[in-house]
Amino acid sequence: MKPSGIPALSRAKLKRYHKLHQKKYRDSEGLFLAEGLRTVRELCTSMPSPQMLETLLVRDGIGLDPGFARKWEDRTFTMTDAECAQLAGTSTSQGIIGVFRKQEETPAESAGTGKAGSFIVALEDVQDPGNAGTIMRTAAWFGCESVIFSTGSADPYNAKTVRSSAGSIYALRHYQAGSLHGELERLSGEGYTIAAASLDGRDFREYPSWPAKLVLVIGNEANGVSRQVQELAHRLVRIPHYGAKPRVESLNASVSAAILIERLML
Amino acid sequence: MKPSGIPALSRAKLKRYHKLHQKKYRDSEGLFLAEGLRTVRELCTSMPSPQMLETLLVRDGIGLDPGFARKWEDRTFTMTDAECAQLAGTSTSQGIIGVFRKQEETPAESAGTGKAGSFIVALEDVQDPGNAGTIMRTAAWFGCESVIFSTGSADPYNAKTVRSSAGSIYALRHYQAGSLHGELERLSGEGYTIAAASLDGRDFREYPSWPAKLVLVIGNEANGVSRQVQELAHRLVRIPHYGAKPRVESLNASVSAAILIERLML
Repeated sequence: MKPSGIPALSRAKLKRYHKLHQKKYRDSEGLFLAEGLRTVRELCTSMPSPQMLETLLVRDGIGLDPGFARKWEDRTFTMTDAECAQLAGTSTSQGIIGVFRKQEETPAESAGTGKAGSFIVALEDVQDPGNAGTIMRTAAWFGCESVIFSTGSADPYNAKTVRSSAGSIYALRHYQAGSLHGELERLSGEGYTIAAASLDGRDFREYPSWPAKLVLVIGNEANGVSRQVQELAHRLVRIPHYGAKPRVESLNASVSAAILIERLML
Repeated sequence: MKPSGIPALSRAKLKRYHKLHQKKYRDSEGLFLAEGLRTVRELCTSMPSPQMLETLLVRDGIGLDPGFARKWEDRTFTMTDAECAQLAGTSTSQGIIGVFRKQEETPAESAGTGKAGSFIVALEDVQDPGNAGTIMRTAAWFGCESVIFSTGSADPYNAKTVRSSAGSIYALRHYQAGSLHGELERLSGEGYTIAAASLDGRDFREYPSWPAKLVLVIGNEANGVSRQVQELAHRLVRIPHYGAKPRVESLNASVSAAILIERLML
């Protein structure tokens, strides 16, 4: 498909889409940006309906796979190099940007009301979008029921979170909790065991079994899980290290999350 | 400690250090850059001798912890905002840059000659510096013997790899193999079992036990482990997903590595 046959992006749309780098506009418009062919393709594969892709933007001169291009030609626009540079938040947009609709927000109250065997991951101020997205991706792989974001965590619809999530933003339920502490108390009241990752916790191998209804809390990269949440948690778990003294201070947050999700789910 | 008492960075040194963003200069000078207070501190804690820190650069007006500042004052220089922006590869240098000496390269032949129970991680074209650094950090936590880098993998001394490695660059042995295939053949000849992560492999839980002398190969982010290496491997292992069809295509490379290292080491 020759780009020459595709309409150019209007100034008004460029301006509107550019604002989606700010969370308040993503929230009010219900839209978010995804950059790079791989990320756009992953989202197109996992989105619950074709309507979730509002607009596909392709830089002048970029050749798309004809099948893919044809499928979305009714909503494709070209952009100039300058427009692409302006719109892309990263240097790796590769000239392809998708404007997608956010998933319907799940009311917090409906989380944890599913079948027994539910496993929920809660992020307490996980600030790095790469970590937040990677944890969503891991949670989707292992079939977690939901991911809860504290207000201090990275936004799931930040372009970097979206890229790291590899399409899982549509593949599992996620929502923001105004008060993570309150939400954990509510889930605790519904029979969930709250487990928090902590360097001061017990080696996870010391627990002979894990309940089916479980919330795993992953804390902030520098400070870990807050004292408030640690006090509320039924179990504090740590990942053992080799030797008497660890050779590094800690594991990366998305790595800790992955090891615990895998150990507690499988 | 007042920055006014600290000498300013000379133009010659600025020019020399700026070149360290290129691998060929890191190799010829035996030096690398570390950005940000946290990364610099982690390296200072884990470096095998104080001489490994060649120079500490602090932007005008940045206040350091007095104890830390005093410890390194003999090799501290100030830099202007403009010099800092020029030298920093990332926007998160926070005004602190360390110039460190690379670890002595271990001859490849000495790897895998240690005690039984050795566990080696090999990276085959893991291109993302964040993934490479995170895998080193995880390998250090779990006490792996070495990490081998194929020539197509990210450079361990790239500033982004260094940041993700959280100081583990000094905490475990790592080296580049000119031919990863050849190196794996050599280790295989020394009694190592070669295991490669692969989506087509066997669920790791199906192996009743794992030998003590083991090399785990992690492949490229998009293409996985090459066919050549898969053919050489004694075991292909995969991480099972939830449900009949996974909700995302794959796991992140550093997450796959972490789950397998943890399962195979603990």
